[in-house]
Amino acid sequence: MGKQIVECVPNFSEARRPEVVSQIVDAIRSVAGVRVLDVESDDDHNRSVLTFVGEPQAVSQAAYQGIATAAKLIDMDQHQGAHPRIGATDVVPFVPIHGITMQETVALARSLGQKVADKLHIPVYLYEEAATRPERRNLENIRRGEYEGLKESIATDPKREPDFGPRSLGKAGATVIGARSPLIAFNVYLNTDNVSIAKRIARAVRHSSGGFRFVKAMGVLVEGQAQVSMNLTNFRKTPVYRVVETIRREAARYGVTIAHSELVGLIPQDAILAAAKWYMQVDNLTSELVLENQLYVEEE
Amino acid sequence: MGKQIVECVPNFSEARRPEVVSQIVDAIRSVAGVRVLDVESDDDHNRSVLTFVGEPQAVSQAAYQGIATAAKLIDMDQHQGAHPRIGATDVVPFVPIHGITMQETVALARSLGQKVADKLHIPVYLYEEAATRPERRNLENIRRGEYEGLKESIATDPKREPDFGPRSLGKAGATVIGARSPLIAFNVYLNTDNVSIAKRIARAVRHSSGGFRFVKAMGVLVEGQAQVSMNLTNFRKTPVYRVVETIRREAARYGVTIAHSELVGLIPQDAILAAAKWYMQVDNLTSELVLENQLYVEEE
Repeated sequence: MGKQIVECVPNFSEARRPEVVSQIVDAIRSVAGVRVLDVESDDDHNRSVLTFVGEPQAVSQAAYQGIATAAKLIDMDQHQGAHPRIGATDVVPFVPIHGITMQETVALARSLGQKVADKLHIPVYLYEEAATRPERRNLENIRRGEYEGLKESIATDPKREPDFGPRSLGKAGATVIGARSPLIAFNVYLNTDNVSIAKRIARAVRHSSGGFRFVKAMGVLVEGQAQVSMNLTNFRKTPVYRVVETIRREAARYGVTIAHSELVGLIPQDAILAAAKWYMQVDNLTSELVLENQLYVEEE
Repeated sequence: MGKQIVECVPNFSEARRPEVVSQIVDAIRSVAGVRVLDVESDDDHNRSVLTFVGEPQAVSQAAYQGIATAAKLIDMDQHQGAHPRIGATDVVPFVPIHGITMQETVALARSLGQKVADKLHIPVYLYEEAATRPERRNLENIRRGEYEGLKESIATDPKREPDFGPRSLGKAGATVIGARSPLIAFNVYLNTDNVSIAKRIARAVRHSSGGFRFVKAMGVLVEGQAQVSMNLTNFRKTPVYRVVETIRREAARYGVTIAHSELVGLIPQDAILAAAKWYMQVDNLTSELVLENQLYVEEE
């Protein structure tokens, strides 16, 4: 029940020619039902990151239009920039937001990969949840050697065989397509200027030092206030409320409390619902009980 | 930002002739952008309650279509039922759900009242937040004497002068139109079979015995479990989380805990957001940060 919503955050290897970036954005916007939420261009990286949302088929169609437009307008033999890249459209992650499973999102990514290879003759590598080989879950492994290195090895190195498309690079390079969980950027401010407490709490909650599986965290000082700065990379498996309550408990051990917290960017409704459900113990709470969601359900 | 959403819950004086009820429902459904969420007909009351949602102008237009259809098909001189009523369309509350203030909702109600009077020649009384006289905030005062009593007194009794329309009743009777806050039906189950604890907690939180202004509550036993059963009549002024936390504290005083809680029917997203914001201290959380809400904002 309810509309299926997917987010797509493609990265294009262009920033210094704004007219090229706008043509890519326009191609994506031209698909009905797709809404572009954000465009960030970085001149040093010579790279632009778009964020758009919509129903799965519309989002996939828009991603295809973006990839086709970038292939026409960007020549990777001419591209320079500080950020690692292998293609005009470098990476295209799909993110399940609402009413759609990760499995369905993976299928969406794979089907776009097939289409890009078939119609545009661009080699496609599948990554993260869509990966077909364990070592391809990690984007950095796929991007190793960048465009220039891949150009030499793609035809012969079995490790570089693309999931779809030719074993040769044209001027559009190769594209990495996949599916991942939504990322929530979330900061917790402590009632102290002692940054070492924030650092110790960051170590307690983050995966790399023994904490929760889907938390990246560091302790920093922001305008004289200690802050635990985090990326939550899978809110369904490591929920926001659990991280907050763990930080609250760890802080108490140092005689410190949470002053307030802060969301950086957007958050899926399901993460909010999970918090309300947990704290108020509303066992029957689902997104279908949210009045606004009733407005957008498909007609039976 | 975001679509404005209003809910409307009109009550029609018909249930025993289902073909009449369906014609009213069809008239409401015929307005584009309106979604009918619920239709409840009660034969004893001979009364049907509809719930529908949409953008303000569409909802107002749909309410008008419902009122016009009911006026054509229902003859109050023939109507019998256990529930008090003064008209074919008895009462039409508008409820602000999203992106719209109570003041704007009151304006919507008054403007529909004027239209119903002008075009259908039905006397209209404004109630609750839309009332023009303090004694008309309460629906029961307006409905006193019902259709039959009002028919006799409307022409001469200054207290019965309608806000809009003629001082005489046709076969469609009169209609009460107004605006009120959304109602949240919410039950909290305690880890005890001692219903007297639930009753004492109900007294602590409800307005009538000294508790929160917008809480109606009673203690009941449901399948051997004590339950505090509540209607929260204004979640913006008396938020759900504050009631839950007060119940939690009161329960602790009896050595009891909250086992779980339960939502009966729908809840506005803002009530969920307020809970997540409060518990996790996310000071900057607004509905605009919910990813799904970005999909439905008006194009600039």
